[in-house]
Amino acid sequence: MKAIRNVGSYLFGPGALGRLEEVLRGDSRVPAGPVVYLVDHFFAGFRAPLDKLPQRAQDRLVFIDTTHEPSTGQVDQMAASVRQELGGLPGVIVGMGGGATLDMAKAVSNLLTNGGQASDYQGWDLVRVPGVYKIGVPTLSGTGSETSRTCVLTNYETGVKLGMNSDFSVFDQLILDPELTATVPREQYFHTGLDTYFHCMETLNGRTRNGIVDAYSEKAIDLCRQVFLQGDMQDQQSRENMMIASLMGGAAAGNTGLVHPLSAGLSVVLGTHHGLANCLAMGPLAEFYPAEHAEFLAMARAQGISLPSGLGASLSDEQIEKLYASSIVHAKPLANHLGEGFRDILTPARMAALFRAM
Amino acid sequence: MKAIRNVGSYLFGPGALGRLEEVLRGDSRVPAGPVVYLVDHFFAGFRAPLDKLPQRAQDRLVFIDTTHEPSTGQVDQMAASVRQELGGLPGVIVGMGGGATLDMAKAVSNLLTNGGQASDYQGWDLVRVPGVYKIGVPTLSGTGSETSRTCVLTNYETGVKLGMNSDFSVFDQLILDPELTATVPREQYFHTGLDTYFHCMETLNGRTRNGIVDAYSEKAIDLCRQVFLQGDMQDQQSRENMMIASLMGGAAAGNTGLVHPLSAGLSVVLGTHHGLANCLAMGPLAEFYPAEHAEFLAMARAQGISLPSGLGASLSDEQIEKLYASSIVHAKPLANHLGEGFRDILTPARMAALFRAM
Repeated sequence: MKAIRNVGSYLFGPGALGRLEEVLRGDSRVPAGPVVYLVDHFFAGFRAPLDKLPQRAQDRLVFIDTTHEPSTGQVDQMAASVRQELGGLPGVIVGMGGGATLDMAKAVSNLLTNGGQASDYQGWDLVRVPGVYKIGVPTLSGTGSETSRTCVLTNYETGVKLGMNSDFSVFDQLILDPELTATVPREQYFHTGLDTYFHCMETLNGRTRNGIVDAYSEKAIDLCRQVFLQGDMQDQQSRENMMIASLMGGAAAGNTGLVHPLSAGLSVVLGTHHGLANCLAMGPLAEFYPAEHAEFLAMARAQGISLPSGLGASLSDEQIEKLYASSIVHAKPLANHLGEGFRDILTPARMAALFRAM
Repeated sequence: MKAIRNVGSYLFGPGALGRLEEVLRGDSRVPAGPVVYLVDHFFAGFRAPLDKLPQRAQDRLVFIDTTHEPSTGQVDQMAASVRQELGGLPGVIVGMGGGATLDMAKAVSNLLTNGGQASDYQGWDLVRVPGVYKIGVPTLSGTGSETSRTCVLTNYETGVKLGMNSDFSVFDQLILDPELTATVPREQYFHTGLDTYFHCMETLNGRTRNGIVDAYSEKAIDLCRQVFLQGDMQDQQSRENMMIASLMGGAAAGNTGLVHPLSAGLSVVLGTHHGLANCLAMGPLAEFYPAEHAEFLAMARAQGISLPSGLGASLSDEQIEKLYASSIVHAKPLANHLGEGFRDILTPARMAALFRAM
């Protein structure tokens, strides 16, 4: 049995961002009141998309520093500063950026109405009341954050990387404008796009399955193949397809398998960004996913992307121990691929060899 | 540019209906207050599903007569009787049945809060305020009503067959239980399932296209092929797949082509049910959809379904004239397939020949 929570509505197509004003003022479901724009700091240097945001005097634009993965402390700080600057709650939060920014927007929205600290809501169904009305504007395709019911945060005090998994973590509306992903650097575009490919293929290779999740995952993979194996991954048609693949991959996000736990280890211990960390994690996993591993290499080749190598040789024994600990903790996805005895297969020695081979 | 409105959330899986009580009482988004169950009269003879409805003293169960396609008069009457019997508005409307019942539930929900008559809201975005909170429980797969933003009604006084196209015509939640489609008579199961196949293939053969709609349509067709060309269309796996195909087909329902306009003519003039009318309409359309026509015949053959024939010979000249008039009026889908000059191609004589060949 699978409960699926959907984004209320989307507007999809090249130039969709130009319709944001219409959505904010002309849609009776969107609350009045100040709009807070949380925008990836990447856009601080690009005026064109920012000029399309219909800002008024009472609205605020805040750049989100996405140098590191989003943290609970960053969410606490952002919510406090929004509340202080407005002297109350905004009517709407618009998150514009990649997965990190979208996750920040969702978490700040939840925290503003629920009070307390972001870390209070890391886990399953802990958010008590709906957040501030939220609109997502993805500028990078692949994470699925735009349609998922989570926002992943790292608590650097406790070392816990965990999402606010909640129906209230779903955006109310999305503006899906494939023109916004035209300026993404090619490597980042590839690494992030592959996030969809990995989480969908992990789902389809897992033991716990669901018909709806499978259907979405299959179609998302089909679209990834069109994007990365047929022509330029960043031409207009491919950008549209990648945006839809990400949407579908996130819409019914299933349980994952081996890539995501190892990737999470890399992010926690080394601070590696999620998309790149997935690609690193997939490197030594050919024996577990032979067909998908070959396809992943073919995709990189077709797009002229050099995959990272040499990380393993640089790791200290202490780092390897930490990497083991922060990967093996993800019991649910590991058991989804290997069964409950996953610790007997992924022994510390075996895991060390995998990390050394990256 | 495409605006898509989604159902808030689904619960999917065999036995999902057993979780309805939990949804009604345990989900903070579901309003309190009496529940009105609008149930297809087909179920009057089957206690098992009805016994799963968590009825309390203040709730009401009403059977919907689906002998004919839903009418505006029927909606007016149903809304008045609900209001009178409860002395006010219900908290929730649960629609349980095929497309006709689901459409009735959506229309009654809209009318109860918007006032006036059902015919006031036939058209695009005429519904002013959200309807009563509505939960859909499909018991037949294929129409896509469960995820669409319309509810199609015939006004028998004016002869207009038109939907309440509105964001407010979308269900708030769905209970998707593939066990409920196990008892559907085989012919009806086939005709209704093919509705998804037809509207998706019409969309994909149309001139106005959209990436999201295409992706949903392609996956829905892929699932229809699994259902109708591989094994028994009504075994458990196929019932699950058909439910998902219908969901996806309805989720991004696009503009149609030639089948639906001719089918609408048959429904208006002869009262033919929508699923059967589509199959009749496809009969003489091999020259317009050669590959899909062959696939449609192969699907019927694989499932041992006899397609209807001989209708054309029984039609009077007056009926042929009426069929022409009530089909050619659907300019948007006809132009989607044939361009703005569709009337020069589908002349009265050509259309008469098509209907005569059914």
